Amino acid sequence: MQCNLEGDGDVDIVRVAAVHKAGPGDLTFVANARYVQKLATTRASAVILGRTKGDPPRVNCAVLHTDDPYSAFAQAVTLFAPEGRPAAGISPLSDVAIDAVVGAGASIGPFVVIGEGAAIGARTIVHPNVVIGAGARIGDDCVIHSQASIRERVVIGDRVTLHDGVVVGSDGYGFARQKDGTHLKIPQHGDVVIEDDVEIGANSTIDRPAIGETRIGAGTKIDNLVQVAHGVTIGRRVLLAAQVGIAGSCVIGDDVVLAGQVGVANHVRLGNGVMATAQTGIPNSVDDGEYVSGYPAIPHRDWLKSSAVVRQLPALRKRVALLEQRLEELEEKLARCPTP
Amino acid sequence: MQCNLEGDGDVDIVRVAAVHKAGPGDLTFVANARYVQKLATTRASAVILGRTKGDPPRVNCAVLHTDDPYSAFAQAVTLFAPEGRPAAGISPLSDVAIDAVVGAGASIGPFVVIGEGAAIGARTIVHPNVVIGAGARIGDDCVIHSQASIRERVVIGDRVTLHDGVVVGSDGYGFARQKDGTHLKIPQHGDVVIEDDVEIGANSTIDRPAIGETRIGAGTKIDNLVQVAHGVTIGRRVLLAAQVGIAGSCVIGDDVVLAGQVGVANHVRLGNGVMATAQTGIPNSVDDGEYVSGYPAIPHRDWLKSSAVVRQLPALRKRVALLEQRLEELEEKLARCPTP
Amino acid sequence: MQCNLEGDGDVDIVRVAAVHKAGPGDLTFVANARYVQKLATTRASAVILGRTKGDPPRVNCAVLHTDDPYSAFAQAVTLFAPEGRPAAGISPLSDVAIDAVVGAGASIGPFVVIGEGAAIGARTIVHPNVVIGAGARIGDDCVIHSQASIRERVVIGDRVTLHDGVVVGSDGYGFARQKDGTHLKIPQHGDVVIEDDVEIGANSTIDRPAIGETRIGAGTKIDNLVQVAHGVTIGRRVLLAAQVGIAGSCVIGDDVVLAGQVGVANHVRLGNGVMATAQTGIPNSVDDGEYVSGYPAIPHRDWLKSSAVVRQLPALRKRVALLEQRLEELEEKLARCPTP
Repeated sequence: MQCNLEGDGDVDIVRVAAVHKAGPGDLTFVANARYVQKLATTRASAVILGRTKGDPPRVNCAVLHTDDPYSAFAQAVTLFAPEGRPAAGISPLSDVAIDAVVGAGASIGPFVVIGEGAAIGARTIVHPNVVIGAGARIGDDCVIHSQASIRERVVIGDRVTLHDGVVVGSDGYGFARQKDGTHLKIPQHGDVVIEDDVEIGANSTIDRPAIGETRIGAGTKIDNLVQVAHGVTIGRRVLLAAQVGIAGSCVIGDDVVLAGQVGVANHVRLGNGVMATAQTGIPNSVDDGEYVSGYPAIPHRDWLKSSAVVRQLPALRKRVALLEQRLEELEEKLARCPTP
Repeated sequence: MQCNLEGDGDVDIVRVAAVHKAGPGDLTFVANARYVQKLATTRASAVILGRTKGDPPRVNCAVLHTDDPYSAFAQAVTLFAPEGRPAAGISPLSDVAIDAVVGAGASIGPFVVIGEGAAIGARTIVHPNVVIGAGARIGDDCVIHSQASIRERVVIGDRVTLHDGVVVGSDGYGFARQKDGTHLKIPQHGDVVIEDDVEIGANSTIDRPAIGETRIGAGTKIDNLVQVAHGVTIGRRVLLAAQVGIAGSCVIGDDVVLAGQVGVANHVRLGNGVMATAQTGIPNSVDDGEYVSGYPAIPHRDWLKSSAVVRQLPALRKRVALLEQRLEELEEKLARCPTP
Repeated sequence: MQCNLEGDGDVDIVRVAAVHKAGPGDLTFVANARYVQKLATTRASAVILGRTKGDPPRVNCAVLHTDDPYSAFAQAVTLFAPEGRPAAGISPLSDVAIDAVVGAGASIGPFVVIGEGAAIGARTIVHPNVVIGAGARIGDDCVIHSQASIRERVVIGDRVTLHDGVVVGSDGYGFARQKDGTHLKIPQHGDVVIEDDVEIGANSTIDRPAIGETRIGAGTKIDNLVQVAHGVTIGRRVLLAAQVGIAGSCVIGDDVVLAGQVGVANHVRLGNGVMATAQTGIPNSVDDGEYVSGYPAIPHRDWLKSSAVVRQLPALRKRVALLEQRLEELEEKLARCPTP
């Protein structure tokens, strides 16, 4: 990435800090236009700054200009990150099945359980108290945080991060209603595949289906407390924000972005690049590239317009009542008008 | 269950598979009309098929006709299910209180904690890293998955399944606002009863009340990430889809069905057989058999009609504006009209 | 707190029970007007009763009159609470780093992991299977329930309760989109501070930011399955009901009350004392003391009025159609009217 330096290139940077908290020795960054005015008063020694429209902001420290301040920031944070990697090896306090395979350089924490026939890739870190079921396969360079549960036969690719409390491979919610009103469980014995470079946030849940598979495509990033139901297929590079729920058998295309608390009904297909604003409810399939909002979801532009009218509905109702009154008066008046 | 076979009854079936993924040796099933057309091209050896209206679909494999394809499918999946039951016995790596009772044939995994005076029924499976509090009672033939937490004195019936990360018996959210604005905790020491044949999905939470009990009725099935607050009574055979939230002291009747992300406000009563579509918000009690949608919830039919109009609101507003203009013109015209 | 006794002050109370379940020897309470009529038939020996408007209710047991029945109830429940405190000391089945500090009278349960350099305050209870990361600091008199995960360097004050499965300090959801459509992780190494007297419900998640801190103010109470994203600042005495989601970098004022399933978009500021009804979606900042509802959120009063009209929209549309028809008839009639 290319950055242009403006100002004193000789400052010592010891930390990365938020613009309003930064002090001498700190590098800060401003990507969001609403924080630009804080640069006039920051005490930071340097700032990463995206190219902005209009006048250049007033800054009293060294400036690193870049087209992509978020990526520059990511790299800066990485540079100053505290070391935190646990030592390689299998904790004597873990319970690893005798036929499980643990790759070179992997770290298995205390009170971790690894079931029969499971395989953990090279350099993968399994934090304390994780449970990995029989026959599960986890790739290289993964990080599995504490309290996660990876059920039997789940397959996880390389460079996957599961945060604390994530559940992968729990039973899908599948029942067949019986004539007496009870619900017969449809056993859920299908597969779950998490492809490479996926990240899943704390306490999110990914169910397994009765047959076939649930699949999360490569590079997809899932936030906390998200539900992915049985038999869902999620494409590549998808972003699911916190508390999103995807019901059974949905097919989510590549590069889809769903904001927080969005719900998608079962058997729905979202085309590539579909976007939905927070709390949208999507009962029907959506074509490639559509941007939807509301419940039930409609095109975002239409929803903006409808929402604006919703706020004015009491006034609109009054206008209609007034029209009715005026019209009645006119009709009465006209009844007295001489007819030709 | 009765099935009629059509075609070659002599095929060998080795697996159950989805209709578009099935190959030779696979049994598949079609219950949902939208997948019927895939039968023309499936490579499955046999299919379970519900009776459909209209022409019988074109199928090139053996067909098992049934009135209840979901139940037949459930039975087929069970037949081909992998064996997965852990061996009976108490893991030497668990921590079971000396006065806890563990039934015959039960299986207690590593790093499980069972508190004083707790009782685990016959043949119940407690997977690794589960914590069961003092005085809790779990019935026969239950399956408690990893990372679940069953708090002190919780009572669980027979044939109950709790998925990974479920919490039963955490404190209800009860506070008394003080004059200085702080919140005094109301201690939550009531009971939680989970009746027979209940299933609770991954990372769902069931709170205990201050006094009295929280109760989940027999045969109720709860999906992932569902919240059931303190003092709630849920009837029998209820279905709560993922991310539903039931606030404190609600009474939910038998056979209620709430779709994903529905919210029910506190002290609300839902009658028997009430249904609500996804994301519905229910602030007030609902009578037996009602089907509701929207926020605030209204009868589903009314909501469908209102939602249709919401989408057309910008057009409706224009129509009102046009009416006002035309009426004004008429009024002006009429003002010049000779009065009788 | 002052209570006035009416009736027999000599009854023996052995339990606190709900008004419709109470029997002889039970103390019950009625704070909610909708339960007052049950007092005529309760078999309780005594009742805590708030001062109500109108006629005093008919009661056939001793009555404790008070201005603040919830607080009196809280105190009564505390009096009759079962003893449940685990013994002080460090379980030999835990894994506590050699340089971790555990305060006097603290209780560390089995299969607890405490990382290097962590510190646990005096009398704090850490229930079984909790994981506490390196360098984390937990204050005095806290209760950390089973399956919770407190990540590295998290700071927790005194008298904090974390319920089962809570995650504090997981990575914020921060990625920088690259030109090839992939998402570069922004490392999340910031701090999380939970101030004194905070309570966090089961399976809720509190993320850490890339830089700076996530902070939960003193006395704030958070219900189950709540998401607090990276870099959020929550004020003092805030109440967040179940399944609320607060997106990144929000600033939530003191004494804010958000009902269940409310969502707040990122970078939003909620002023002191803001309230929102269940399922409200808040895309923009809200001033001190505002009470909002709906999605997008508007003032509660306006939302009540708009919601009422939404239900009548099909009727309103018919009225507009009828107006159009009548107006057209009038226009035709008037066209035949002799012009002056």
